Amino acid sequence: MPSTAELAKRVRAGDQAAVGRALSLVVNESKGFEELTKSFFPCAGRAHKIGLSGPPGSGKSSLVNRLVPHYRKLGEKVGVLAVDPTSPFTGGAFLGDRLRVQEHALDQGVFFRSLGSRGMTGGLSATIFGAIHVLEAYGCGRILIETVGTGQDEVEISRVADSVVYVTAPSLGDEIQGMKAGAMEAADIFVVNKADLPGADKAVASLKTALDLGAKPKGDWAVRVLAASASLNQGIAELAQTLEEHRAYLASSTEGAKRKKTQLREELSLFITRRLRKDTLDRISDADIEELRSGRADPVTLGERLIAGFLKAARSRA
Amino acid sequence: MPSTAELAKRVRAGDQAAVGRALSLVVNESKGFEELTKSFFPCAGRAHKIGLSGPPGSGKSSLVNRLVPHYRKLGEKVGVLAVDPTSPFTGGAFLGDRLRVQEHALDQGVFFRSLGSRGMTGGLSATIFGAIHVLEAYGCGRILIETVGTGQDEVEISRVADSVVYVTAPSLGDEIQGMKAGAMEAADIFVVNKADLPGADKAVASLKTALDLGAKPKGDWAVRVLAASASLNQGIAELAQTLEEHRAYLASSTEGAKRKKTQLREELSLFITRRLRKDTLDRISDADIEELRSGRADPVTLGERLIAGFLKAARSRA
Repeated sequence: MPSTAELAKRVRAGDQAAVGRALSLVVNESKGFEELTKSFFPCAGRAHKIGLSGPPGSGKSSLVNRLVPHYRKLGEKVGVLAVDPTSPFTGGAFLGDRLRVQEHALDQGVFFRSLGSRGMTGGLSATIFGAIHVLEAYGCGRILIETVGTGQDEVEISRVADSVVYVTAPSLGDEIQGMKAGAMEAADIFVVNKADLPGADKAVASLKTALDLGAKPKGDWAVRVLAASASLNQGIAELAQTLEEHRAYLASSTEGAKRKKTQLREELSLFITRRLRKDTLDRISDADIEELRSGRADPVTLGERLIAGFLKAARSRA
Repeated sequence: MPSTAELAKRVRAGDQAAVGRALSLVVNESKGFEELTKSFFPCAGRAHKIGLSGPPGSGKSSLVNRLVPHYRKLGEKVGVLAVDPTSPFTGGAFLGDRLRVQEHALDQGVFFRSLGSRGMTGGLSATIFGAIHVLEAYGCGRILIETVGTGQDEVEISRVADSVVYVTAPSLGDEIQGMKAGAMEAADIFVVNKADLPGADKAVASLKTALDLGAKPKGDWAVRVLAASASLNQGIAELAQTLEEHRAYLASSTEGAKRKKTQLREELSLFITRRLRKDTLDRISDADIEELRSGRADPVTLGERLIAGFLKAARSRA
């Protein structure tokens, strides 16, 4: 095994095997993963980070699988990160992950990795920024971040990605109706995928109406609604073109600077929360739980006592 | 405004207005909300906490609206908590919330409240246990906890609820296929709602097949698959009966004791995390973010420095 410093050097030199190893190290939070973030942070911001969210059945993954070759033809290296709820029961292996890795296995310019959302903290994994840093250090120009969405995820993806795409499909009419305000407001671009199916025009029209009624303008960016068909490979160039326009808009607007700050604050917050959680929650013992169960303590009193103990231990270490 | 102690007393005495005020206090994390938890904790575990999750369009809310009168006819007080992703843009007011509160406004035995999942932490709000304590102190025998589900939520609801119901509908075939292992494994009972629609039998059958193939046995409980129609008010008594059987199973099994411990650990963890986050993340300044933006610091180094500062401040307070 190479040292962390050696691994970082190889990633920067474009060593494909090193990228895979660095991603695993970061995603599993193995020893050295924070060193990699320190080492790669100067490359932060080089890639265009594109978030794609939407309900199951909207065909997000198929759309991503069409965007990848589009960018590859332009000579860009591409990273794909899929944020998936991890099952604490099964440990979170994804069949789809293995299949998709295989699909691109012969292409040195594409990296695919699943990130669990890591149990009880919910939401985006703290490791997502670490994975982005690896891909940026390797030289990926585009990073596609895929997430299942029911409102919360779209909001969270907007704290990581530069451009947010919400994917839906004609058959998911109910879902559009029930879509949360947060999801509507986080998206920069809507794509009605499976546009070859009946009802696509209606879905596009009702999204446009909903946007006219409800959305606040996002700076000077007018939110777009596009139609596409991943299965027929239609509308992909238009989506890529619109993403390019959004990237240019961010580069020249205060909105772009604002998003950059939001991303940095999110990364810092996730790091601090992860470190503090680890230092405290790992200290909860079975005896503590028994105190609660027997009614000898309540969660507030016990929680305050455990925090005080953690602070005392940190003090004696300092 | 009554004091927190007076408010707690009135809730225990069955004062309906006091319950509403206590729920607001807890949900908004206003001054005194932790005192209420301390005061009500001795009542913890009195209610049967039933989690209902499932995708948008499955008719979860309609099913809950049928279960409520079922339990009311049996003379039980009922609480309904809806976990909804909060939009950080709009602040998270729910139209549906107001409509549903109105529906039950004349009945002193029903309380309904929405809980946002509170921005970037994602997942279940730390306030959910506080709300449960209020409802249990008031004397609710059943607490129905509703959540939108794409895998992660089902897992989280299983750390709060005693019994977990996963609701789906015949039209959501795609969704069942794409359902995550976590969701399958967290559910004790599956309900195919809208069973009056075509495809219901097929949905029941494919769920049963999926369970036979994939699920580990949950102790001695054989996971059930039921059909129901909230709109026709069919299958509600069967669902309530199955929930009763599950409750009896928990009362007499090690699985029940295990879940109780999981719930206590979750509440303690949420309390500690919330307190630590508040004490540290609130201290991140614009100057800190500017250090990251300009590249003068990386998130790991800066994060460690901020934690050290927090510990130092805590030390000088002690």
